[in-house]
Amino acid sequence: MYLIPNLDLNISKPLYVQLYEYIKQEILSERIEQNEKLPSIRQLSKNLDISRTTIENAYQQLLVEGYLYSIPQKGYFVSSFDKTFFCNNNKIECINEEKMHNNIKYDFTNEYVEKHNFDFNLWRKYMNKVLSYESEKLYKATNVQGEIELRQEIVKYVRRSRGVNADIHQVIIGSGVQYLLNILTTLMKRMNIKECAFEDPGFNRAKNIFINNNFNILPIPIKENGIDLQKLGESKAKLCYVSPSHQFPTGIVMSVDQRIKLLKWASQNDGYIIEDDYNSELRYYGKPIPSMQSFDKNGRVIYLGSFSTLLVPSIRISYMILPTKLNNLYQENKNTYIQTTSKTEQLALAVFMKEGMFEKHIRKLKKNYAKKNLIMLNTVKKYMGNTVEIGGTDSGLHLLLKINTNLSEEEIIEKAYKKNIQVCGISKYTIYKKIKNKPIIILSYRGINSNDIEEAITLLSKIFR
Amino acid sequence: MYLIPNLDLNISKPLYVQLYEYIKQEILSERIEQNEKLPSIRQLSKNLDISRTTIENAYQQLLVEGYLYSIPQKGYFVSSFDKTFFCNNNKIECINEEKMHNNIKYDFTNEYVEKHNFDFNLWRKYMNKVLSYESEKLYKATNVQGEIELRQEIVKYVRRSRGVNADIHQVIIGSGVQYLLNILTTLMKRMNIKECAFEDPGFNRAKNIFINNNFNILPIPIKENGIDLQKLGESKAKLCYVSPSHQFPTGIVMSVDQRIKLLKWASQNDGYIIEDDYNSELRYYGKPIPSMQSFDKNGRVIYLGSFSTLLVPSIRISYMILPTKLNNLYQENKNTYIQTTSKTEQLALAVFMKEGMFEKHIRKLKKNYAKKNLIMLNTVKKYMGNTVEIGGTDSGLHLLLKINTNLSEEEIIEKAYKKNIQVCGISKYTIYKKIKNKPIIILSYRGINSNDIEEAITLLSKIFR
Repeated sequence: MYLIPNLDLNISKPLYVQLYEYIKQEILSERIEQNEKLPSIRQLSKNLDISRTTIENAYQQLLVEGYLYSIPQKGYFVSSFDKTFFCNNNKIECINEEKMHNNIKYDFTNEYVEKHNFDFNLWRKYMNKVLSYESEKLYKATNVQGEIELRQEIVKYVRRSRGVNADIHQVIIGSGVQYLLNILTTLMKRMNIKECAFEDPGFNRAKNIFINNNFNILPIPIKENGIDLQKLGESKAKLCYVSPSHQFPTGIVMSVDQRIKLLKWASQNDGYIIEDDYNSELRYYGKPIPSMQSFDKNGRVIYLGSFSTLLVPSIRISYMILPTKLNNLYQENKNTYIQTTSKTEQLALAVFMKEGMFEKHIRKLKKNYAKKNLIMLNTVKKYMGNTVEIGGTDSGLHLLLKINTNLSEEEIIEKAYKKNIQVCGISKYTIYKKIKNKPIIILSYRGINSNDIEEAITLLSKIFR
Repeated sequence: MYLIPNLDLNISKPLYVQLYEYIKQEILSERIEQNEKLPSIRQLSKNLDISRTTIENAYQQLLVEGYLYSIPQKGYFVSSFDKTFFCNNNKIECINEEKMHNNIKYDFTNEYVEKHNFDFNLWRKYMNKVLSYESEKLYKATNVQGEIELRQEIVKYVRRSRGVNADIHQVIIGSGVQYLLNILTTLMKRMNIKECAFEDPGFNRAKNIFINNNFNILPIPIKENGIDLQKLGESKAKLCYVSPSHQFPTGIVMSVDQRIKLLKWASQNDGYIIEDDYNSELRYYGKPIPSMQSFDKNGRVIYLGSFSTLLVPSIRISYMILPTKLNNLYQENKNTYIQTTSKTEQLALAVFMKEGMFEKHIRKLKKNYAKKNLIMLNTVKKYMGNTVEIGGTDSGLHLLLKINTNLSEEEIIEKAYKKNIQVCGISKYTIYKKIKNKPIIILSYRGINSNDIEEAITLLSKIFR
């Protein structure tokens, strides 16, 4: 415990009285807890650079008044007494901020991972390996670009799973895609690019990063096979953010044809494409389509990937792969950035991947989620039937329901909330707030227990029937 | 392992040939390693959604040509062969970026922590506690403002050690002070503050954050008791960054009188002070001075603290305490920010602090560093004598040497480098590049073994004698 009184030699009040008043106030306001040991007289005298007699006098006064008690050979301790007895304005408030949504029973908007979808005991084993055998490395600062061991594993992984061509110098690790986009905005500004085209509806958190960095956002509508290329051309954008593997929230997978056209757009306009390959691993039907980066011969694609949805949300590790020209810009002053990702977690993930555990985990996850996806699909069909049109079924962790009802999106969300179900609507993700014919609701099912799906969907179906 | 060939049904080349060529290329370019197992025919057929016969034909061809070998009941494996035999343009480069400064023997600029100054076994124990008993929490995303458990401990700690008044809602946790400053710049912009006054010389990494966020930097010279208040007033700044406990790199401790004047400046100008309380724990002589935040009655101080220099550099946890007005702005849209600090490490640190281990660690650290500081001081005096004026001796982890020599700062750095010693000069941290009478060198001694100090200083002293 530290005591840092603001003692003033220039006022007439004796030092011991100032110290006595300070400690008393600390006790009354519960900044020092009951039965806590105070520093010894010798120790405090040294720390505060004042005489032992001063400290002794102050402690003596507190003892007399009952604020302290002493145990011989042990020292001075704070007494326990009924604090409500004293007037108390300075108490530390400790409201539990997490208690906000406690009455929600089924949350179709949360990011909770079911226990059987992540083996914490296995992860602990890898964390322990690093903390035990690689502690030498942990005495040193984190590599600003991300640990080399992890970048090596990422390069191998994206090459095999997504056809991405890169070497470790092009890979930047960050805690979350948003953090990496922050870095990207600084590079783009140096290229004199200050506008970014976004799929509309699209991923809000990415949009916000660009907004916070004073970029102009150009919303481009989504057509059935992806972003509207004509509108993109008309926008005069030089930078375009897409998620071709699984457009959020529509779930549309961009066709190869569309991908190649988009790459041509970038080459012809001296532009760049940000390919957010979000959830590309969780594809349940149909052929895998290689990443746009793998088709890119002209260094036009910035590739983004993330482990967060694949492990647990509390482990935030993402990566960005820069084309050569942008990477050169980054390397020029990469030391002005900082690496925020835990070094221990980076190294643990590297070993986890190296030993094949990550791909094993992904296979299991894909199987589990495919099953859950099917349950959701069948349950929605069974209980909602023709009242809904279902979208986004091939991949990812949510369904889109276009609902044949006279209720508005807001009304549905409100009615669901009253039944203790949390859902969100597509409007949250659009910039063009058009009047839509029918409301569209997004059901993220990751955090819903498979056994609860039937009840949750039944309850929900009653809202618009 | 994943294989993602870009197969095209519309060209005349048979699918199995396309697949064969793809796998061959993957092997030749070492994207698939020797002796690695290929996916089974059944599995790949399912993944790629093409017939088993196609896969079988492709594998057969690769077997015949010797790229693969097969083990009955086990599967297909990549052969080992001399790769230099083949033309190979796509090899993954794995240059070890860390091998850059390997010839440096004594690095007076690094952040390495000696082993006896951090007990990794103890830290592992706390990490394990969280990974074992709090894994439930780790299935959920990190609190955007930082884990409540850690914020509670921080509030108690800064109150006792630095007199800081705050409740947990005002505390924001981030991975490094720079990350927190990024958040602060967005709040400041909303207050229409786009300039920041900085001590000159001062902490570059903080300055860079403001520069990256398009702030105008107003360098204010340092006088012997801290920032030049008259120049600050003339600058018309509304925001001022100071490190009163230990000005970097001069080591000046700001007097109480100066602190109060600075608070008055803020109140009178409707301005804010960023108090970076960097290394306040590592004070070896003299009275402790409470933080500026503890004197602040008008909500003018943004308080910054960090655990990074106190634990190991690979654990990046810092905190920012906002005054009410700014905190209200932050709370309004805190969900547009992200929390990048490892949740596991946050929770481990919270228990570490709660059980008193942190303050115990700090006491030990202070003792060790005070000893090392004294060794440095005595050794410099012994070997450099009157050739140097020593500064910054009361606290922190470095000394400043003003050297009586005709050599320039650059020449000293270069000569030291040739003797395999890395040092840096004060010019690195100044904006006003004035012609100084005598060069000033910064010696960070944290990463130098106590037993090596004598040799390192002897070598260094020979440069300017």
